[in-house]
Amino acid sequence: MNSTKRRGQLIVLSGPSGTGKSTVIAELLQARPDLYFSVSFTTRPPRPGETDGKEYHFVSRETFEDMISKGAFLEYAQYVENYYGTSLQLIEEKRAAGIDVLLEIEVQGAEEVRKKCPDAVLIFVAPPSFEELSRRLRERNTDDEAVIASRLETARKECEEISNYDYLVVNYQVPIAVKEVLSILTASGCRTQYRLIDWKGV
Amino acid sequence: MNSTKRRGQLIVLSGPSGTGKSTVIAELLQARPDLYFSVSFTTRPPRPGETDGKEYHFVSRETFEDMISKGAFLEYAQYVENYYGTSLQLIEEKRAAGIDVLLEIEVQGAEEVRKKCPDAVLIFVAPPSFEELSRRLRERNTDDEAVIASRLETARKECEEISNYDYLVVNYQVPIAVKEVLSILTASGCRTQYRLIDWKGV
Repeated sequence: MNSTKRRGQLIVLSGPSGTGKSTVIAELLQARPDLYFSVSFTTRPPRPGETDGKEYHFVSRETFEDMISKGAFLEYAQYVENYYGTSLQLIEEKRAAGIDVLLEIEVQGAEEVRKKCPDAVLIFVAPPSFEELSRRLRERNTDDEAVIASRLETARKECEEISNYDYLVVNYQVPIAVKEVLSILTASGCRTQYRLIDWKGV
Repeated sequence: MNSTKRRGQLIVLSGPSGTGKSTVIAELLQARPDLYFSVSFTTRPPRPGETDGKEYHFVSRETFEDMISKGAFLEYAQYVENYYGTSLQLIEEKRAAGIDVLLEIEVQGAEEVRKKCPDAVLIFVAPPSFEELSRRLRERNTDDEAVIASRLETARKECEEISNYDYLVVNYQVPIAVKEVLSILTASGCRTQYRLIDWKGV
């Protein structure tokens, strides 16, 4: 509406492994192809079907630690013995161009984002229940029982952090969860401090 | 999902006279017939076409002041020499029953609601510009020039209060404004502290 450049929003999705975050994100990106989905860097090995640069930028521990020392990450965290991190430069470029950025990160990383970007919108995606999460992790059939037990224990700990998040989306059904995240995106764009950048006033 | 009763949300719409709040609200109620739209009490005389109990409960100054002394209002305010107020008891009954409540109130009243209900969602509906507001007030054709000038001056003062609101919806086009308010309603229901009432956790 005027010459002031609207800054893109930073929307962060976190939640335990197995809550269906990836499915929710895939549908979000279909509904909002204007969103930039930030691909994280990780040192964990690719799972079958994963492609470098698509699900993650897969890098070695040496490369990752070099990036840490250069301050290249908005946030990074170690999780089940692997690093995960988000490129600060990429995010900043997109937001400066007015593009909304969607991040999927680990629960540890979200707190770091909050500190560095107080205007970030933090969304926790939770499973309906512990029983349902167990069922989903077993259905995925990519991990053995010990790994599943460890993931469930991690999930319990991660859920203790929920109160640090602005929003809690419980993934009972994917279409409802997607609609809720889309509403959060629209609503966040209506936040007063945000809108006052575009609106000249009366 | 469990026996804990979800408490209804309190959504407050304010904004200068002539921004199209009433039209936005009419479409909101069509889209969300489950919402309870709180009808305010006022001492201002009905405009042509207005019905007691529909747009407002029209009462005398004596009755209104008696209600004030009995603490019957969630908020009340004096505006252009008339009182406007919201029944506390009605709102509380609906919220306790899990029904979302929509309030349209004057800008002065919104601050009072914030103090009494910190979890209320405050939305300011603004016109695109001063010029557009002038045009809309003249188009309405119910007020003379002196009243319009006074309303425009009041609008300028009201817009200074915008930063007290959670959200700013600029009414460029009614369908977009309605979509934004609907998104704010959905998103507000996903607020973490709110959702934790329903969700049992992992």
